[in-house]
Amino acid sequence: MPFRIDGLPERVTVYEVGPRDGLQNEKAVIPVEVKAEFIDRLADAGHRVIEATSFVHPKWVPQLADSGELLATLKRRPGIRYPVLVPNERGLDRALESGVDEVAVFASATETFAAKNLNRSLETQFDMFEPVIARALEAGVKVRAYVSMVFGDPWEGPTPIEQVVRVGTRLLDLGCHELSLGDTIGVGTPGHATALVEAFGDPSRLAVHFHDTYGQALANTLAALRAGVTVVDASTGGIGGCPYAESATGNLATEDLVWMLRGLGIDTGLDLGKLVATSVWLAERLGRPSPSRVVQALSKG
Amino acid sequence: MPFRIDGLPERVTVYEVGPRDGLQNEKAVIPVEVKAEFIDRLADAGHRVIEATSFVHPKWVPQLADSGELLATLKRRPGIRYPVLVPNERGLDRALESGVDEVAVFASATETFAAKNLNRSLETQFDMFEPVIARALEAGVKVRAYVSMVFGDPWEGPTPIEQVVRVGTRLLDLGCHELSLGDTIGVGTPGHATALVEAFGDPSRLAVHFHDTYGQALANTLAALRAGVTVVDASTGGIGGCPYAESATGNLATEDLVWMLRGLGIDTGLDLGKLVATSVWLAERLGRPSPSRVVQALSKG
Repeated sequence: MPFRIDGLPERVTVYEVGPRDGLQNEKAVIPVEVKAEFIDRLADAGHRVIEATSFVHPKWVPQLADSGELLATLKRRPGIRYPVLVPNERGLDRALESGVDEVAVFASATETFAAKNLNRSLETQFDMFEPVIARALEAGVKVRAYVSMVFGDPWEGPTPIEQVVRVGTRLLDLGCHELSLGDTIGVGTPGHATALVEAFGDPSRLAVHFHDTYGQALANTLAALRAGVTVVDASTGGIGGCPYAESATGNLATEDLVWMLRGLGIDTGLDLGKLVATSVWLAERLGRPSPSRVVQALSKG
Repeated sequence: MPFRIDGLPERVTVYEVGPRDGLQNEKAVIPVEVKAEFIDRLADAGHRVIEATSFVHPKWVPQLADSGELLATLKRRPGIRYPVLVPNERGLDRALESGVDEVAVFASATETFAAKNLNRSLETQFDMFEPVIARALEAGVKVRAYVSMVFGDPWEGPTPIEQVVRVGTRLLDLGCHELSLGDTIGVGTPGHATALVEAFGDPSRLAVHFHDTYGQALANTLAALRAGVTVVDASTGGIGGCPYAESATGNLATEDLVWMLRGLGIDTGLDLGKLVATSVWLAERLGRPSPSRVVQALSKG
């Protein structure tokens, strides 16, 4: 029996990042057929947006070097979006060749992470995004933007809110339909999440992407929902995180999120039993247990 | 830099349950000197309420068979409360002999758990509590009451809110100064927590005791704070849980709670660094890592 809280949305879209953000950090080499089956199981569990892979250069993310082959293998279902990450124009070219209808670009909210992750400055990172976004939109392909390190990074400490709003607004102004605010190192707390969402003014194009490094992801999600956000990034089984920062582990687990949303009477269209079964199936293939608490509790028997 | 949320309290009392609720579930035998040092380290980290041990019969909880010896060993500091759990009059006698100034009784919100844990019914459990509470108060000893399985139990499913309010109100009416609402199997979600606290009318004598079995403890805490609760039970390092129900694991970790409260600008008087150091120290003695995410993140170095 659900117990609603006033001011929370009726529906939430879970933006599933497991096949990309999860698998890109795995040491094991996952066969392309397993990846395709993983994505198909997620669709079967009710997901309507599944970030499928990344067209980052294989030198940087060898785990996803098979992105073109995966998209050729995958039976894409009507009504389901399968966005892919593209870091630059070369990545966009490869994505377009694979017939994608949505891409995502990845920006930094801090100077140091822009330098380390993108080899750019906070300002010049846009030289990379602008042609990608413009060409994608020209080709009829929607563009999502990530902005990372929104609450802090390991080098500069807390990120000024106005700096995140400046980077994010510029990405939205370039034509991105959605902006995902990423707490890449998991340091955020609910008041900070509220303040950041409110600083944007309009939450309708915002998504949140929380990491559970300090156990805060679900509490932050609750605060973001209350501030008007209706799109939440999560990873089936809680796999993945950011490979660039040592302390960055633990995407919010889709199952833990769905447990909360279901209890709150918020519709996601997702089948929790099928999600858990998928995580158990995947854990066998990855050779390690799912970090999701819900998966651990429900699969104990 | 803290980011406050309107409607949350300025101060929260963390009711530390690690030495009792944590250690009672450990397989390892912990020497009494280690227990005393653990409690002293918690006091040193700023705790003002530390549930020290339990006077349950050693047959049921052999891990805490040394409760009398512990209280004799422990250097109790002025201004710090060291409540102990007492299940019945025999336990109270032993606690009073040890010179305690606060005890806690343990009730069930469901019929089945009352039968399994207390060998009583929902109604007859009060035959056990009434003389304990009355005699403790006569002796000038304060009484806290726990009520467990407040959102559901493994046998009956969801617990009706009015049933929890009936049990809890009766305990408060008997003279308990505080009522701790326990989600023993961790199934609660934030709306349920809100509804339960609101159903009591006055939150000023309520505490919450959440388990992280389904990852919900911190989100539920946030909801409870918003509903007016200012006392939160937690266990240093996240040790412990309930030994009676298979799926009941994972007390909310004090460090994860303090990370959130600190970020929200809510004063606890606790030193996070000292708490983490205590958890790292204890983990070495228990022979297994702390389940707290904050401890894991901050002790990685």
